[in-house]
Amino acid sequence: MKETEISDLGEFGLIELLTKDFPLRNSSSKKGVGDDAAILEYGDKEVLLTTDLLLEGIHFDLRYVPLKHLGYKAAIVNFSDIYAMNGTPRQITVSIGVSSRFTLEHIEALYSGIRLACDTYGVDLVGGDTSASVTGLVISITCVGEGRQGKTVKRDGARPTDLVCVSGNLGAAYMGLQLLERENRVAAESGNAEFTPEFDGKEYILERQLKPEARKDIVERLDAAGILPTSMMDVSDGLSSELMHICKASHTGCRVYEDKIPIDYQTAIMAEEINMNLVTAALNGGEDYELLFTVPLTDYEKVTSIEDVRVIGYITKPELGCAMITRDEQEIPLKAQGWNAFTGADSATN
Amino acid sequence: MKETEISDLGEFGLIELLTKDFPLRNSSSKKGVGDDAAILEYGDKEVLLTTDLLLEGIHFDLRYVPLKHLGYKAAIVNFSDIYAMNGTPRQITVSIGVSSRFTLEHIEALYSGIRLACDTYGVDLVGGDTSASVTGLVISITCVGEGRQGKTVKRDGARPTDLVCVSGNLGAAYMGLQLLERENRVAAESGNAEFTPEFDGKEYILERQLKPEARKDIVERLDAAGILPTSMMDVSDGLSSELMHICKASHTGCRVYEDKIPIDYQTAIMAEEINMNLVTAALNGGEDYELLFTVPLTDYEKVTSIEDVRVIGYITKPELGCAMITRDEQEIPLKAQGWNAFTGADSATN
Repeated sequence: MKETEISDLGEFGLIELLTKDFPLRNSSSKKGVGDDAAILEYGDKEVLLTTDLLLEGIHFDLRYVPLKHLGYKAAIVNFSDIYAMNGTPRQITVSIGVSSRFTLEHIEALYSGIRLACDTYGVDLVGGDTSASVTGLVISITCVGEGRQGKTVKRDGARPTDLVCVSGNLGAAYMGLQLLERENRVAAESGNAEFTPEFDGKEYILERQLKPEARKDIVERLDAAGILPTSMMDVSDGLSSELMHICKASHTGCRVYEDKIPIDYQTAIMAEEINMNLVTAALNGGEDYELLFTVPLTDYEKVTSIEDVRVIGYITKPELGCAMITRDEQEIPLKAQGWNAFTGADSATN
Repeated sequence: MKETEISDLGEFGLIELLTKDFPLRNSSSKKGVGDDAAILEYGDKEVLLTTDLLLEGIHFDLRYVPLKHLGYKAAIVNFSDIYAMNGTPRQITVSIGVSSRFTLEHIEALYSGIRLACDTYGVDLVGGDTSASVTGLVISITCVGEGRQGKTVKRDGARPTDLVCVSGNLGAAYMGLQLLERENRVAAESGNAEFTPEFDGKEYILERQLKPEARKDIVERLDAAGILPTSMMDVSDGLSSELMHICKASHTGCRVYEDKIPIDYQTAIMAEEINMNLVTAALNGGEDYELLFTVPLTDYEKVTSIEDVRVIGYITKPELGCAMITRDEQEIPLKAQGWNAFTGADSATN
């Protein structure tokens, strides 16, 4: 019997293969696999459902991620998926598997981060499961969100001439990770227990990696401005990969301008220090949790007046494909190089 | 700093400690931690939410559990939690972490079991997450169920003089596990690759362990008979532990009769073969997924006419505590010896 390596398929290929034979048969299941969250309909409400599994050694490294930050981030990545549907996160369940090297104080630190996230975003912890684990820490969080009829935004509504917009800036979380890994390496090589990592002037990229926020504010500003995006998702795997998801789901192509991609100063400094192409980092660095969305061209005035939102390109017919227009006006096809959980880095699916 | 071992607290102690500082602030959160499922209110519907985390080496052993059966069971245990709230399971999300020793064919076998469970119970797969894992298989399933206003049954409604009822029979799944472990030991000791395990005449307890069912039929029969239980939960950790949960939540005591606890013939045979006290197995063996519930005394006629349901005792005032009345009319206090996920066996919390 021929056996197939899962890493050959990649995460998205695997999900597609595994879930294709599951029909939706309940009238309450409006949209299943394939967006930031599933859309359920209960009564007159749209209920959004998303889940993330975080495994030690794959998604986080406790040598440089404090448990409180890990708990905060584990909750935030789920909230971000709900905001990316234009919904409001309301409830989470938290399941953990802990090996014997963790004490109660460790787990309390993890939950203090989850609690801070719940307090900040007004979300209720309503259940979960706890278990021993043979090795390492396992965190599985499911988030339920509330949508409004007719206002839930999926990935498949982008249309040619729509503007492509993104919030905040990109690549910072990835550069924060590079910084943490570098300082951890230097500390290990120095053999000095008193070693103090060099984070001066890099606090912003560090915070973007260790304590990301979900862009509740952007969703609220869009609503206040009377803009309903035609498609939206959060940038967890990298701009390039997410743009291709939107274009695939919407059956369109896109053009984004290299010189319009928002990048923070600290991100640029760090990229230079480690000799990495800055635009590559911004396109493919994951974990930004910014919102990527499209709006009709007629919303140009409104959307450009929203704080912390940039128009970076436009949607095209599908035959034009997905490409970036460089500073010297070359067209470079986008590639989905986003982090892959099967080759060792973070990637959320739902 | 004094550090605390998690195993000292036990699973329920840990959950209580970790979740006590999480207030419910959203009007859609009706009931949080502490029942088979959380109760949410969206529109005019009650939405039930439950989750289970299954870890290789803690909850299952792939030496004698086929992956298809594991997938089926992982789904069923969640459906069972929804039925235990008198609800109907509608949607699940499935997250998996897989180490490199698993091929696509392995994961497809796991999903074929999940699909069979979904087909059988009419549930839709609507999302999930997939990831690599450093060691072993991780399965996290969350189930959303639909409740009817005023018909959702919690653990806290039992009242003195209520009848204690249970469906099916108890201890069979636990004896099935003992059988699997014994045959696996014998096979290992024989060193014979052609070894054929002895399962003749024990098919029932094997099936109860490997392919349990959720008691949808009992929920439907109760409804058809016009009975709304005053409290209900599923028997996942053992009758004794679950009875104490109901009595604690309801602020009552209880009496159950040893000679009324339903036990299958094959369970009794296996207990004798391995020299285990049969009633201990029925009280403390987990994974039965039968329904334990209480009904008003006035429903005695109705409930005793329902197929596959037995009245095993009654609810008392709290000061009388929880006890079993033995065949020779001794009162033995019940102990929550249920399986503990922190000492190496299965235990679901929500």
